[in-house]
Amino acid sequence: MLLIELDRRSGKAAYAQIRDRIAGMVEDGTLQPGDRLPSSRTLAVSAGVHRTTVVRAYDELRALGYLDSRSGAYTTVRRRARLPATVDRSEDRGDGTLLDWHRTSASPLFPDGPPFTAAAASDVTDFERLAADPSLAPETDLRRCLRSALAGDGPAAVDYAAPAGWPPLRATLSRRLRAHGVAVSADEILITHGAQQALDLVLRLLTRPGDQVAVEAPTYGMLHPLLRLHDVTPVEVAMGTDGLDIDILSSTLQHARIRFVYTMPNFHNPTGITTDQAHRERLLALCERHGTPIVEDGFEEEMKYFGRAVLPVKSMDICGIVLYVGTLSKVVFPGLRVGWIAAPREAMDQLTCIQHATCLAANTLVQAAVDRFLTSGDFEAYLRRAHRVYRRRMQALLAGLERHLPSGIVWTRPAGGYTLWLSLPQPVAVEAALIEELSEAGVRVAPGSWYFASPPPLAHLRLSIACVEEARIEEGCQRLGETLRRWT
Amino acid sequence: MLLIELDRRSGKAAYAQIRDRIAGMVEDGTLQPGDRLPSSRTLAVSAGVHRTTVVRAYDELRALGYLDSRSGAYTTVRRRARLPATVDRSEDRGDGTLLDWHRTSASPLFPDGPPFTAAAASDVTDFERLAADPSLAPETDLRRCLRSALAGDGPAAVDYAAPAGWPPLRATLSRRLRAHGVAVSADEILITHGAQQALDLVLRLLTRPGDQVAVEAPTYGMLHPLLRLHDVTPVEVAMGTDGLDIDILSSTLQHARIRFVYTMPNFHNPTGITTDQAHRERLLALCERHGTPIVEDGFEEEMKYFGRAVLPVKSMDICGIVLYVGTLSKVVFPGLRVGWIAAPREAMDQLTCIQHATCLAANTLVQAAVDRFLTSGDFEAYLRRAHRVYRRRMQALLAGLERHLPSGIVWTRPAGGYTLWLSLPQPVAVEAALIEELSEAGVRVAPGSWYFASPPPLAHLRLSIACVEEARIEEGCQRLGETLRRWT
Repeated sequence: MLLIELDRRSGKAAYAQIRDRIAGMVEDGTLQPGDRLPSSRTLAVSAGVHRTTVVRAYDELRALGYLDSRSGAYTTVRRRARLPATVDRSEDRGDGTLLDWHRTSASPLFPDGPPFTAAAASDVTDFERLAADPSLAPETDLRRCLRSALAGDGPAAVDYAAPAGWPPLRATLSRRLRAHGVAVSADEILITHGAQQALDLVLRLLTRPGDQVAVEAPTYGMLHPLLRLHDVTPVEVAMGTDGLDIDILSSTLQHARIRFVYTMPNFHNPTGITTDQAHRERLLALCERHGTPIVEDGFEEEMKYFGRAVLPVKSMDICGIVLYVGTLSKVVFPGLRVGWIAAPREAMDQLTCIQHATCLAANTLVQAAVDRFLTSGDFEAYLRRAHRVYRRRMQALLAGLERHLPSGIVWTRPAGGYTLWLSLPQPVAVEAALIEELSEAGVRVAPGSWYFASPPPLAHLRLSIACVEEARIEEGCQRLGETLRRWT
Repeated sequence: MLLIELDRRSGKAAYAQIRDRIAGMVEDGTLQPGDRLPSSRTLAVSAGVHRTTVVRAYDELRALGYLDSRSGAYTTVRRRARLPATVDRSEDRGDGTLLDWHRTSASPLFPDGPPFTAAAASDVTDFERLAADPSLAPETDLRRCLRSALAGDGPAAVDYAAPAGWPPLRATLSRRLRAHGVAVSADEILITHGAQQALDLVLRLLTRPGDQVAVEAPTYGMLHPLLRLHDVTPVEVAMGTDGLDIDILSSTLQHARIRFVYTMPNFHNPTGITTDQAHRERLLALCERHGTPIVEDGFEEEMKYFGRAVLPVKSMDICGIVLYVGTLSKVVFPGLRVGWIAAPREAMDQLTCIQHATCLAANTLVQAAVDRFLTSGDFEAYLRRAHRVYRRRMQALLAGLERHLPSGIVWTRPAGGYTLWLSLPQPVAVEAALIEELSEAGVRVAPGSWYFASPPPLAHLRLSIACVEEARIEEGCQRLGETLRRWT
């Protein structure tokens, strides 16, 4: 006879108590597969609840796979797998694993382990993270946009979207790009699962294993594991103080078969450098001459907060050789994973097929909500606020470095975005120990070598103001300066 | 002098009217780059609005890139790209396109064009679509879960998630899988952007160009373009009435280097066949003997609505050779793109690195909301309702086919899921014309050849009850029967 005593004061619903007690008895073996349970009527009487309460508990237990029953028959405990759920098989196996999964994959993508780091402890000044500060995120606006998408678009908002993306968002993004001088129509825009997936699609379209691409040195750190996955070799083109060295690139394009040139003209990651109009024109003309596609990463296009904006290379792309990658993640809501590619129609058709074959389409509801966020005026209001915050943070950082850094160290002065780049007089080999010592001093920064395929002779550090409060910056610079002084 | 007359009765906010009028003047050339705009005070007086209204309009125009201004200076029209936004460059280019994007990609992924189809017109009986019916989606529950995620998890809900997924959702899915007899812990689960992306990750882990994998014939139609993208050849193993033919598979594993076996033991797509316990044990033992991984697609694990459930192959996987792929999309909310892989830890480490390198991580907010949906009881309540609806639709379809189909046609009788499989006595070549004629008769079905790499001699059709109302099924069967009778 199954006896279940309910705890009336627990605040947990009666049906849930019954459900969890029976599940527990199945799991600890008190009830065995095939054992009959009392009828819902009988159990209801003994437990002192209404019969519908027991019916609900039994229904959920059936849905959870604990119970079996056919109409008209008794409810019984279901026969489960031959392995109890509590066995941790990895211990049983020891060294006798049947398959060596490591052997099936290529060289390690992250030789030093994945670089993903959670938010820093509260006593640490975090100059490392590069993502829109989640503490500035306009969550109330987002909630309203999600509600409006679910109410306004109904079932379509939770159904599959077309492979190229949610049409209203594609139209909205084409309007925004036009405001940046980029004349693309909605059907030249593909919505992706963030900029990283956009770059993956581009590599799938343009490269084969063994190919070479030209990248800035330093460049976006997460590009390197992606290139390793594709078995594509980066040919590094040095960054000068005004952007990638066009003469070196010209020579590279003459002497190697380069599938595309990857560049970040605005607020370059990691250096923070923004190229000028003349540099962009020279770069475009050079690639047009060689028929080499440019992949322009406009990941922080909206993050200009000092001086005048320079228009994207894509804005001058008469010949259709530029694939422009954009993202929301570096402006707001990184966790929503909304990115896009603007590309000539012929490339768009190919990219859309690859997108459809590899993940069907991007998230519909999020696209519908982000479209509302971009068109409602919420985004502009947020941008004004964010620009103010980031401008002050960057000013605080520049002033702090000026005050506290020992001589012999130089750094860039970005016109927007989040990062700047310290060049140290020490050899690159000290970076790891330096990062370690800074971490002990309560400052988190990113090591320069992470952004190179072949690190240069001297050490660098990337500092980001993305996720550090203005009030913390002065103290962070002081700690940074103290540590660096010990090294010089 | 800039004159703006407002339409007080238009219902459009005054600042938005000013914004759009000035944007229009920039676009049509009335205002030229460098032109000075009146001060906000002057324009406010002439337009008869408060000054803050003009300030807001100017702010948005700056954010949109129409205007320039530096503190203390006049507001001017911004210099824009050398191409006006209205030029459609594809016409200018004609045949002179600099790059042939088609040449850069491999053989076409979708030789007949992408198969994505929008919802059918209201007078069409849609036996084609296979996705949880969006009209059944519990949108109110989802809205509450989204609100709760934003309120409860705060900024973390819109920040990047860890590459393997949102920890609470991984824990919740491990509990659900245990209820299906699958003993995996949270750290053996990777959250993906839907099942399609999960399969893409698996192919990236286990295959190299030129490799072979064993697939059921017929199998999931969208697997074939994905295999083409990876340059992986499918070795087809015929489906019998009880599942894939184990003897043929055994011979295949002996004679070819097979990287993995892809199988759908429950409600197989397209046939609707569910294999029994003995079949699963034979399949697992065979693959253990050969050291060949099994990729088990449990895409409709929760869709059992007739009879007893059979436990997944993964539930018996003592040796750790099964990668289990699951998804929410075929149960509820296809547009949310939530899928997962349950795999041995060694494989999980590799898959997580690939996930991180190719798209950083899945959508955080959606993961946090789905976790609440799965744990709140909402999901069980939805499943009960959905099972009732789909069971009745499947019963109506089986009864309708019995009544209306001419003799010589046979079909499967699924124990759950959405699809069943018609085998016709006509040669496979008639499929296209037949689909066309059915479409004219107002019935949409999927052609059998879509599910094969090498179509068999005879024609097949896949019928799905996923998105067709019960009341439409009888008439759909009648139209289907009438058309098919003309062909026999």
